Amino acid sequence: MSDSYQKVSEEQHKNVPVNPYGPNPADYLSNVRSFQLIESTLREGEQFANAFFSTEKKIEIAKALDEFGVDYIELTSPVASEQSRADCEAICKLGLKAKILTHIRCHMDDAKVAVETGVDGVDVVIGTSQFLRQYSHGKDMSYITKSAIEVIEFVKSKGIEIRFSSEDSFRSDIVDLLNIYKTVDKIGVNRVGIADTVGCANPRQVYELVKTLKSVVSCEIECHFHNDTGCAIANAYTALEAGAKLIDVSVLGIGERNGITPLGGLMARMIAADRDYVMSKYKLHKLRDLEILVAEAVQVNVPFNNPITGFCAFTHKAGIHAKAILANPSTYEILNPSDFGLTRYIHFANRLTGWNAIKSRVEQLNLNLTDDQIKEVTSKIKRLGDVRPLNIDDVDSIIKDFHTDVHTPRLGPTNGPAIDEESNLLDSVKRPRLN
Amino acid sequence: MSDSYQKVSEEQHKNVPVNPYGPNPADYLSNVRSFQLIESTLREGEQFANAFFSTEKKIEIAKALDEFGVDYIELTSPVASEQSRADCEAICKLGLKAKILTHIRCHMDDAKVAVETGVDGVDVVIGTSQFLRQYSHGKDMSYITKSAIEVIEFVKSKGIEIRFSSEDSFRSDIVDLLNIYKTVDKIGVNRVGIADTVGCANPRQVYELVKTLKSVVSCEIECHFHNDTGCAIANAYTALEAGAKLIDVSVLGIGERNGITPLGGLMARMIAADRDYVMSKYKLHKLRDLEILVAEAVQVNVPFNNPITGFCAFTHKAGIHAKAILANPSTYEILNPSDFGLTRYIHFANRLTGWNAIKSRVEQLNLNLTDDQIKEVTSKIKRLGDVRPLNIDDVDSIIKDFHTDVHTPRLGPTNGPAIDEESNLLDSVKRPRLN
Repeated sequence: MSDSYQKVSEEQHKNVPVNPYGPNPADYLSNVRSFQLIESTLREGEQFANAFFSTEKKIEIAKALDEFGVDYIELTSPVASEQSRADCEAICKLGLKAKILTHIRCHMDDAKVAVETGVDGVDVVIGTSQFLRQYSHGKDMSYITKSAIEVIEFVKSKGIEIRFSSEDSFRSDIVDLLNIYKTVDKIGVNRVGIADTVGCANPRQVYELVKTLKSVVSCEIECHFHNDTGCAIANAYTALEAGAKLIDVSVLGIGERNGITPLGGLMARMIAADRDYVMSKYKLHKLRDLEILVAEAVQVNVPFNNPITGFCAFTHKAGIHAKAILANPSTYEILNPSDFGLTRYIHFANRLTGWNAIKSRVEQLNLNLTDDQIKEVTSKIKRLGDVRPLNIDDVDSIIKDFHTDVHTPRLGPTNGPAIDEESNLLDSVKRPRLN
Repeated sequence: MSDSYQKVSEEQHKNVPVNPYGPNPADYLSNVRSFQLIESTLREGEQFANAFFSTEKKIEIAKALDEFGVDYIELTSPVASEQSRADCEAICKLGLKAKILTHIRCHMDDAKVAVETGVDGVDVVIGTSQFLRQYSHGKDMSYITKSAIEVIEFVKSKGIEIRFSSEDSFRSDIVDLLNIYKTVDKIGVNRVGIADTVGCANPRQVYELVKTLKSVVSCEIECHFHNDTGCAIANAYTALEAGAKLIDVSVLGIGERNGITPLGGLMARMIAADRDYVMSKYKLHKLRDLEILVAEAVQVNVPFNNPITGFCAFTHKAGIHAKAILANPSTYEILNPSDFGLTRYIHFANRLTGWNAIKSRVEQLNLNLTDDQIKEVTSKIKRLGDVRPLNIDDVDSIIKDFHTDVHTPRLGPTNGPAIDEESNLLDSVKRPRLN
């Protein structure tokens, strides 16, 4: 495909001015301008159907995440398997800038193993919804609270960070939730976590729950959103607006089922809100390589429509779009591809093309045509585009033939070329060219 | 991959009870329970980089959309090319249940062609943001208003539906927007449209703008969301909560750049909110075939993490998830795969597996092991899962060998098999099996 696009100079890009509907500085709850990332490709991502990470691959991914600039790296429980424990210890010894966490059940057996691995913190989780209490661990809230206190005080006694999260928070009883969060906050957890374990939450629910929780605890709030109903990025953003500080992400969103908030997609959302903060913290130029590293490790393709790195994320096709993009890219772009080391393309070889896009191509070919002539050749290109898919060579052939004919002295009164019939037009792009 | 999963009976699925954070019946603005779809694969989707639809393919897609049950089908402007006009006329003659729309610039030249094609309605759009006014059409608001009135009254005079939409609505001046919407509402448009043309909007902005617009117009509100920052599904849902009635979608979200709200993803979101309404209107069993039809037509793969139809959307891997899913699928699923003609899998051949998942497999194999024995064989499977990726045959071999050893009389005092070393374990899954 790449040769049927037209590259446009990055210099034309101008900064996007303040969005009148953007984050309101007066919104004192918001952490949109000060969020942090807990990167969970090596925990949640290991729960992805295709994931099997060797020790070497885990280390390669951990280093790449650290270079990207994530704040925390979360690892699979050391209790999951013997190799999981050994890998956790190995990553702790790498001396990364990112803090290393491991993720365990709310149980002393797990906690005792976790604190010996060398991690900077432990993420504890327990199911609080009626579903999980009935079908998973079978415990009631007073047992959950008692376990939580025991585990939290033990981990704190080792001098490392501790997070307490409920699981399936959006289907848990609000009174149960607030009670246990208030209790664990009082005994000094570093963070409490809200988890949309089944991917059922929607943004306004998220806003209400986070805002309510914010009024109950003094510690930071972390959020974890599954993407079953396609809202994981929006829920994360809305949680930050309501005062959450940390978002769980994974590369390409890999995780249980169809995964969680993707790192790249969240970057797209956050850079639209506060470009300076995002650019200052994260090495966005490394995003594409990071995604390719993980995609290859789990044997998937980067989705065609992935935010930022999908093959068409910066491709503009319709004629009216192309015209304005050529004048000012911000007209149809909220993201600047050069922020990610990527480039923009104007797709002009198709029947939706417009004469502004073709004019730009004529200029690139160093040809000389009037606007009326460009409109005429555009209509030829659109006619051929009705017959079959075009590539850039087809369009260039039509333009060059037209240019030759226009600039060749003729006997008749015509200003344009004579090959107006479809068959001639098709011929003109099929025959070998000498120029 | 498919043979390394374990199919679970659909009969175990129980209905998801009312979500305490679900749509509030008291929210009188909401159209979550009465939304409609404007399907734009044949308009917005044609602006996707890879799209070239022949007449036959357009007709095949239009029929499939109609069978799925979409309310409206939107087609490329008949002014885009001669074939676009002919295709529009051909689709109008199919006699589909869905209403047929075409999408034009706010200009009499376009309107005159559109009303002659046989469509049930015309969708008119014009850029109202400072970007589009400056870099695209170069017109001021009074010119835009004058054109809008002329086009609307002309289309209405032909007795067909008319929608007026601004473009890039979220970067337009709110006073300009409300003025023009109020004007076109008074002269009797059927719908006004809000478009997040650049994909910059976030859910709370959407809620505020739609709610405000709802207080200004009496006609229906339609919304169009691009997905550049990953919020197109969430924005659509939130718009419905605020009183919008119609959402623009395309199959797999194909469109300019990385596209718009995807039909399938929105179905996932809506069915989580109101399963009965969605099931009564749309043929969800046809979703996968519809996505495959369009994916093949534009030469892309269905993304691995696509809601509902991604290969892993109903795959459960972690041991603690598998346990609860086996007891009650609603524990970790907000969507029921059988609603879409799909099935659920428990991925048990990996190091994160748990003994409940292995117990279920042992029962499927009609073998007889105690819980303690199952825990012992699970630990063997996890050890091998640490060494390399497993498939279902590996796991079955380990289980069968273990079962044979357990049930073979021995001279020594052991209850379990003697092959505890890794090398023996590896051997046992490599050697050919006779049973």
